[in-house]
Amino acid sequence: MAIITLTTDLGLVDNYVASVKGAILKEIPETTIVDITHEIPSFDLQKSAFVLRNCYEDFPEGTIHIIGVNSEQEVDIPHVALLANGHYFIGADNGVFSLVFDNPPEKIVELTLSQDTDRITFPTKDVFVKAACHIARGGTLEVIGTEIKELYERTLFRAVYENNKLKGMVVYVDHYGNLITNISESSFNDYRKGRAFTISFRKYGIKEISQSYGSVPEGEKLALFSSSGFMEISINKGHAKKLLMGLEHDNNPIIIEFHD
Amino acid sequence: MAIITLTTDLGLVDNYVASVKGAILKEIPETTIVDITHEIPSFDLQKSAFVLRNCYEDFPEGTIHIIGVNSEQEVDIPHVALLANGHYFIGADNGVFSLVFDNPPEKIVELTLSQDTDRITFPTKDVFVKAACHIARGGTLEVIGTEIKELYERTLFRAVYENNKLKGMVVYVDHYGNLITNISESSFNDYRKGRAFTISFRKYGIKEISQSYGSVPEGEKLALFSSSGFMEISINKGHAKKLLMGLEHDNNPIIIEFHD
Amino acid sequence: MAIITLTTDLGLVDNYVASVKGAILKEIPETTIVDITHEIPSFDLQKSAFVLRNCYEDFPEGTIHIIGVNSEQEVDIPHVALLANGHYFIGADNGVFSLVFDNPPEKIVELTLSQDTDRITFPTKDVFVKAACHIARGGTLEVIGTEIKELYERTLFRAVYENNKLKGMVVYVDHYGNLITNISESSFNDYRKGRAFTISFRKYGIKEISQSYGSVPEGEKLALFSSSGFMEISINKGHAKKLLMGLEHDNNPIIIEFHD
Repeated sequence: MAIITLTTDLGLVDNYVASVKGAILKEIPETTIVDITHEIPSFDLQKSAFVLRNCYEDFPEGTIHIIGVNSEQEVDIPHVALLANGHYFIGADNGVFSLVFDNPPEKIVELTLSQDTDRITFPTKDVFVKAACHIARGGTLEVIGTEIKELYERTLFRAVYENNKLKGMVVYVDHYGNLITNISESSFNDYRKGRAFTISFRKYGIKEISQSYGSVPEGEKLALFSSSGFMEISINKGHAKKLLMGLEHDNNPIIIEFHD
Repeated sequence: MAIITLTTDLGLVDNYVASVKGAILKEIPETTIVDITHEIPSFDLQKSAFVLRNCYEDFPEGTIHIIGVNSEQEVDIPHVALLANGHYFIGADNGVFSLVFDNPPEKIVELTLSQDTDRITFPTKDVFVKAACHIARGGTLEVIGTEIKELYERTLFRAVYENNKLKGMVVYVDHYGNLITNISESSFNDYRKGRAFTISFRKYGIKEISQSYGSVPEGEKLALFSSSGFMEISINKGHAKKLLMGLEHDNNPIIIEFHD
Repeated sequence: MAIITLTTDLGLVDNYVASVKGAILKEIPETTIVDITHEIPSFDLQKSAFVLRNCYEDFPEGTIHIIGVNSEQEVDIPHVALLANGHYFIGADNGVFSLVFDNPPEKIVELTLSQDTDRITFPTKDVFVKAACHIARGGTLEVIGTEIKELYERTLFRAVYENNKLKGMVVYVDHYGNLITNISESSFNDYRKGRAFTISFRKYGIKEISQSYGSVPEGEKLALFSSSGFMEISINKGHAKKLLMGLEHDNNPIIIEFHD
């Protein structure tokens, strides 16, 4: 019984998500469909990628993940299906996939599914569902597309290291207000080499990594590596975004200074 | 394995949707339950009908659709179950069904399910689930109700044609801000007869129908016939409601003038 | 096929709920997962308990209910699994369970599942899912924990009776704006003894219990005992919170005076 997940900006108010699910169940009634989220801000590729990269490996291998954000095909944005780390992914190659994976996928095909109509205003339903159900029935990628070698590469601002300082920024704020940065635990440990450190964020300084939110008193700020593997600035039982950043934009810098 | 869909104004915050799902699973544990939406504005029959009419045919034939909006039974508002276009529908006959179907259903019954209690404050769970599970087990409509011939008719303001002009209005705004009108593709083509045209909406004029949102540059307005089959005024990667209508109400007129 | 329900404050925007579902499906792909709600206000135990107590018995016996709110383990807050009224419950013993049940559970165990890591920032996924899947496979509570006798008791302000008056308060406002009180139907009937009564709420007085919302004209206020079993102050097709309470906080007093 195949599992198909949906990551979209379709929202939960209109009929769109139901249309996609109906189309899947019409092809394969026993499919297990899981919503990753439908609340991606309209057209936001970076958030789509962030959310999917942080959960797809929680699903069983062989799961098929549809990304329905900015999914219109354009001359230089083909529809693709790909296999990476034992999971299948389907969407428009608008750069979102390059933000999901750290390494190139094992196989990528540009979809060549014939379409019933010239007008495709809803490719998530009209194209991606067909590809997903083909894979769910055990079909191979080669049957639905032509192999290509590379994905459209988008580059993220990555954390940089110089003069004993690791400089990153807040790249995602979750609904608790936790501030998630682009500093990974492995890069932090690589540069740290066991040294003491100060994490500077706006006017605040944090000198240790907590093992859980409850490691500090309620209302206190802390830094930890969360389930995403990235450093997170939080407040135990509080809303770090509101309390530490106010109305400012997400992309606040964060600087970790290592002390010799 | 039966599929039951839910279209309600119950929201996602309280226990109500879970109570409905629990009641279904208690009767038939292997049912596939699909949320159409639970975010219908409280008591809004027109939006309920619009959402359901735009997606029910995406589901396999035999699917059972519960509408849980304004579902209290009143003297002149019976609870009904009906069969239309190969799908089953259950709800209160408050006029919502007449907005879902263009043609009369094949069969309608007024529900005569015995109730455990005089007090029915939650008919979606206490009545509609029973009817749905009866149908899901392969039962006939006649067993749970008495056949009636007609539904309560609500009339929508429909697009009208006079003096070479087709006059309609915006009837639904989706969460992207797309403005969906009551002008269907078939009526547009019927009146157009191959002529050139100008779509007038507020101070704007549009002279062609696009095949996709991406047919115009980002930020440009366009008209297309979307997956709903109705004309939609949109902005490529933009929010048409905010940018074209501001704070005005939904029901803005739209006039298509055909040029001889 | 086991049913696992989820009651959390994880929200629907981030990847967290999907991570929990993926982890369940990775262990037992055929599990039926039902969202109770993920929109509990962050860290709100009282609302979590209220929502779950009002729907868990709608599910089949044997259903496994995970509460993922304030789920970090602390020295005096163990992770527990318990059996009550034929249903299983898993969560942190932070007091939430004492608000769900009126009587002590049949069995309670403190979870002793070994953990893969010292760092547990996401116990709903890393601990509760393991316990739930153990139970879903037919495993006993004794295997995953050590029996304990009592739960952490939180006390709610309960309705009190004196001088022919039953005094309670609004404890929950649902998304329709219905004001749900802590006055149960059974206590109301016990104290009433058939007498006439006046329900006083702010400047309003109500002298009867309605059988349904539609028992009064649209826009009129009413009192009824809803599906939760508690007295509710509502407005037929209206939003009682906005119209009767304005911007005031939830916990407004409600006084029922019985007339000899």
